[in-house]
Amino acid sequence: MLIITKNKLNLEELKQIRKFLSDKNVDVIPVENDMRHLFVVTGRCGELTRNEIRKHSLVSSIVEVGKPYKLSAKSSLSQKTKIKLGNSLTIGNKKIIIMAGPCSVESKNQILSTAQEIKKVGANILRGGAYKPRTAPYDFQGLGKIGLHFLKSAADEFGLPVITEVLDVRDIEIVAKYADIFQVGTRNMQNYPLLRELGRQRKPVLLKRGMWATYKEFLLAAEYILVGGNSQVILCERGIRTHVPETRFTLDLNIVAYLKHETHLPVFVDPSHGTGRSSMVRVMSRAAVAAGADGLLIEAHLDPGRSISDSDQAISIPELNKLISEVKLIAQAVNRH
Amino acid sequence: MLIITKNKLNLEELKQIRKFLSDKNVDVIPVENDMRHLFVVTGRCGELTRNEIRKHSLVSSIVEVGKPYKLSAKSSLSQKTKIKLGNSLTIGNKKIIIMAGPCSVESKNQILSTAQEIKKVGANILRGGAYKPRTAPYDFQGLGKIGLHFLKSAADEFGLPVITEVLDVRDIEIVAKYADIFQVGTRNMQNYPLLRELGRQRKPVLLKRGMWATYKEFLLAAEYILVGGNSQVILCERGIRTHVPETRFTLDLNIVAYLKHETHLPVFVDPSHGTGRSSMVRVMSRAAVAAGADGLLIEAHLDPGRSISDSDQAISIPELNKLISEVKLIAQAVNRH
Amino acid sequence: MLIITKNKLNLEELKQIRKFLSDKNVDVIPVENDMRHLFVVTGRCGELTRNEIRKHSLVSSIVEVGKPYKLSAKSSLSQKTKIKLGNSLTIGNKKIIIMAGPCSVESKNQILSTAQEIKKVGANILRGGAYKPRTAPYDFQGLGKIGLHFLKSAADEFGLPVITEVLDVRDIEIVAKYADIFQVGTRNMQNYPLLRELGRQRKPVLLKRGMWATYKEFLLAAEYILVGGNSQVILCERGIRTHVPETRFTLDLNIVAYLKHETHLPVFVDPSHGTGRSSMVRVMSRAAVAAGADGLLIEAHLDPGRSISDSDQAISIPELNKLISEVKLIAQAVNRH
Amino acid sequence: MLIITKNKLNLEELKQIRKFLSDKNVDVIPVENDMRHLFVVTGRCGELTRNEIRKHSLVSSIVEVGKPYKLSAKSSLSQKTKIKLGNSLTIGNKKIIIMAGPCSVESKNQILSTAQEIKKVGANILRGGAYKPRTAPYDFQGLGKIGLHFLKSAADEFGLPVITEVLDVRDIEIVAKYADIFQVGTRNMQNYPLLRELGRQRKPVLLKRGMWATYKEFLLAAEYILVGGNSQVILCERGIRTHVPETRFTLDLNIVAYLKHETHLPVFVDPSHGTGRSSMVRVMSRAAVAAGADGLLIEAHLDPGRSISDSDQAISIPELNKLISEVKLIAQAVNRH
Repeated sequence: MLIITKNKLNLEELKQIRKFLSDKNVDVIPVENDMRHLFVVTGRCGELTRNEIRKHSLVSSIVEVGKPYKLSAKSSLSQKTKIKLGNSLTIGNKKIIIMAGPCSVESKNQILSTAQEIKKVGANILRGGAYKPRTAPYDFQGLGKIGLHFLKSAADEFGLPVITEVLDVRDIEIVAKYADIFQVGTRNMQNYPLLRELGRQRKPVLLKRGMWATYKEFLLAAEYILVGGNSQVILCERGIRTHVPETRFTLDLNIVAYLKHETHLPVFVDPSHGTGRSSMVRVMSRAAVAAGADGLLIEAHLDPGRSISDSDQAISIPELNKLISEVKLIAQAVNRH
Repeated sequence: MLIITKNKLNLEELKQIRKFLSDKNVDVIPVENDMRHLFVVTGRCGELTRNEIRKHSLVSSIVEVGKPYKLSAKSSLSQKTKIKLGNSLTIGNKKIIIMAGPCSVESKNQILSTAQEIKKVGANILRGGAYKPRTAPYDFQGLGKIGLHFLKSAADEFGLPVITEVLDVRDIEIVAKYADIFQVGTRNMQNYPLLRELGRQRKPVLLKRGMWATYKEFLLAAEYILVGGNSQVILCERGIRTHVPETRFTLDLNIVAYLKHETHLPVFVDPSHGTGRSSMVRVMSRAAVAAGADGLLIEAHLDPGRSISDSDQAISIPELNKLISEVKLIAQAVNRH
Repeated sequence: MLIITKNKLNLEELKQIRKFLSDKNVDVIPVENDMRHLFVVTGRCGELTRNEIRKHSLVSSIVEVGKPYKLSAKSSLSQKTKIKLGNSLTIGNKKIIIMAGPCSVESKNQILSTAQEIKKVGANILRGGAYKPRTAPYDFQGLGKIGLHFLKSAADEFGLPVITEVLDVRDIEIVAKYADIFQVGTRNMQNYPLLRELGRQRKPVLLKRGMWATYKEFLLAAEYILVGGNSQVILCERGIRTHVPETRFTLDLNIVAYLKHETHLPVFVDPSHGTGRSSMVRVMSRAAVAAGADGLLIEAHLDPGRSISDSDQAISIPELNKLISEVKLIAQAVNRH
Repeated sequence: MLIITKNKLNLEELKQIRKFLSDKNVDVIPVENDMRHLFVVTGRCGELTRNEIRKHSLVSSIVEVGKPYKLSAKSSLSQKTKIKLGNSLTIGNKKIIIMAGPCSVESKNQILSTAQEIKKVGANILRGGAYKPRTAPYDFQGLGKIGLHFLKSAADEFGLPVITEVLDVRDIEIVAKYADIFQVGTRNMQNYPLLRELGRQRKPVLLKRGMWATYKEFLLAAEYILVGGNSQVILCERGIRTHVPETRFTLDLNIVAYLKHETHLPVFVDPSHGTGRSSMVRVMSRAAVAAGADGLLIEAHLDPGRSISDSDQAISIPELNKLISEVKLIAQAVNRH
């Protein structure tokens, strides 16, 4: 059970409510966000007490937490979450959304040409990394702020929203200036300070599944953002670590079917990381949409062989074009477009 | 490099060719099947020697084994393997083939009614287990021979071919009498005596992937059947063991895309075991066909809640009906039917 | 609940007892072995009925199956299983038993010299494969019967018992003539016909864990042998498939600690397969014994670099010597020897 | 190849050296830390050019990066890393170091009594979490700063150094005031901003392996800290995610043997998380030390059943006492103490 206060409490109010609960033998753990306080009830709490709590002047509502994830559960909302970007684009509707672009922003010209090309073939959102999480400290770490600038300018030129990764709580402010959607990478799925800060933002967050995560852990990570008051979360399957050596990761499409039953949040798939092989991206994009995905996150590059990072999995623009056509046919077959 | 003889050699011929190779310093390991001898060259063998071997009166041909799997590799055959069943059914063509039926044959009436129902909704082949591999010795192990009889009678009544599992080399003869396709279960993917014996059969074999197997190991298991001269092998993905607790197995559709590039053999998917949840079977069937599967193996039951084995994953006949309709739409979207 | 008959029933008796149970509304599944019939009760069975069953003239006893594995559970036996080999060797006592030898028997001289050398450094049992399960049909499959003969002769010369793998139910008879312990490989952990036949033998069986198996599945596989009446089962951890690429398998020593709590059966560890790297075998042998292992299965070769199979993981005789010395020190530290 | 500068370069110097390299057609990616610049050479660089670079006035040295991890590789240092804590304690010497304490600091009295008890039974360092990474936002998140204060006071009282987890780059300063060793949890193994900041600290860091990480990825994560100039890194195995449901994680002791060959850094093991079962902690501690671990990280609690978090895996003080005695015997058996 969660007790949710009307506002953030001042010290006096905090003392008051804690005494109130203590007198009723209700054990709680306080959690706060920038809007309000929450009290997680850890022990028992009978029906009568529950009514008294509900009526307390500082309390907004109480919520039964049957499942460990509450806000992301389907039951918590009467309809699917829809995320509007600008006037014409909505994530979580019948339309399959394609986010495409290079792994890294490499130069102003590269990202400008890419934006033009992906727009031409029908992609909806421009992706590109300015801050890159790299396994080795000696690998290219992204262009940083100037990369953000190149990315946003290119996107604006062609009227595309932008998604880009944020790695560091200290970068949120700057990334927020340039990005329309924050991306949280697989390695940060359980970076709780980052998730909490993104919960305070009022911009959409695409949260990638940790390559080790169970379905429950994934939903609980989303919960960290939702509990902060940011309801615009997009879940993204991107492959898990398994014993299979022939692919970079094992794309787990079971989770798409599962999440569509379990949560109201939009579900995306990243077949580029999920296979690690450019030759498999198109086919697995079709499979993802057939499994119910609301959109795709695709690494596409003007010249995949020359990509600074992840060149094995980037596809070319003509291949992206083909992918989008094929995905449209699948979308229609599952009553979407 | 493989040296393939024209016929099975008698002792005299065997001595003769081994002396011939020994004189040329060619180290070999002999492998034999029921049709011929093969010699696997383990060391070096120069071009000149190669030519002399090729011309030897007992030798049919020599084959370069570039990939560890040779006969299953796409390069070994000019076209995709097609497997004919009766006059009207071909596996490996444009048509998506649906194999459906209960996990276990439970009674004469059950399997007869099932055959009727699955035929009505458009399934193509009747599945049902008479010999069951069960994790515990105390679990129901199948009806055995009488189960085979029930299964075949039911299938004949409605003009359906039959697929059923064979567990034991000593059962091959009896199963062959009743089955149109042998099924090899996941636990037996590397049961080499069983694979070798099935290589001597001239009936199709559906080989399920070991839940631990890499893609290469899967193809090498198929190779054990092919090397015996039985070219009618169907590969079937059925889920792998991963850390995910929410599903029984993780269905690995990446392998479908991979195998369609790598081998000429037909590729099937079993979404019943691959998810272990009846509510996910239909959606994952769509995804499997979108990923390129040539057919599906589905557990369907007249009354899923009462299935003796695997009741969590069996779907009802109306759900199978819906599944087949949806799969047809996906099939059309990928230019199949 | 299990109902165990006094003897194997004839058809008349079988009908009689089934009618008896049916009249009492007790649903059962019959399982038979070569000694007797078992009836697995699948539904409810009240206390009164239970008493009536117990008194039935054909019934020997009834057993409550609380855990899915019954005979391998610690509670089923008042003491640890001890397996005597000849007059002086007992597996399951305080002494750590070392089984060592080559992956494959390669020649008469090789195995003879190996037997001499491993005896000299203090190993207790000679291992060596005559029938080899190989991933590819083109790999060396073992010397077969002549290999068994070489192995047994070499072992006899130095007074060592022999352990060797059996792959095929049809080879059990021949292997039984030469081996003191049957080895079941990882790929055959759920080869139920093989396990059942070994349950009819009266010789020890070393059962390797399937590389995909849970702890429960491993114990249930042992149960297949025990239920047949063969109580001499040795469990052997040999590494599982994980995402780690740096070792061939991940040796799971947690299972040793677990099994020592859970079962009365002796537990061995194979650090050769469990690491796949000869440089790690000695260290992991120490860890295995510290974790409670009753013995080790080690691949040792006169000239590891020239081993026909698995040459990366075989250790030399001097390294085996060192391993045995170090393991003795650990054994003393855990009050064994 | 890495080019390391003598100091951190100003803009002018940076331009100068980039022009110098550019003129010689040497492609580089610059990486900087607080002390200096590094240039990672991404293309070819001949011997002559290499000499010219070496002589450049701004260059300190060039380093060949054969392995992807350089500073953590054994070859980079002539001896093992030893980490001194106060006057009497050294990590990385012959002595096995025991870090013990509760998962979370719960109250002043709890941690004070714990410190006293673990000191009495011979533990060397006090562990305890003040900032807790919890899977669900509704779980207890630690006492925060006041917890740090309780922890440090308790440790000081009994002359014990303190290890505690840091989750957030913004907490490093405050944690540094109270902790003798920073702990980085499994979820943060690839939290690069955190690793980089800890690289700027001059205090030891115990880095836990990501539950998904390969051995190479683990060493590369350590490299992020080392490259910043903080050479006091302790590696800690704590179990990986596998298919096994009977334990919380699979403790991978293979990595201990591997790391002792591969790196000069001390290697610890956390058998509490690595098993998730208090009944297995003692046995696996023995195995870890037999495998070569330099120390152990143990969850111990005055009253394990009442622990706020992770109560299934915490052991009692008497059990810790027994563990330390048994580990000493193993230590002696491997020539340590």
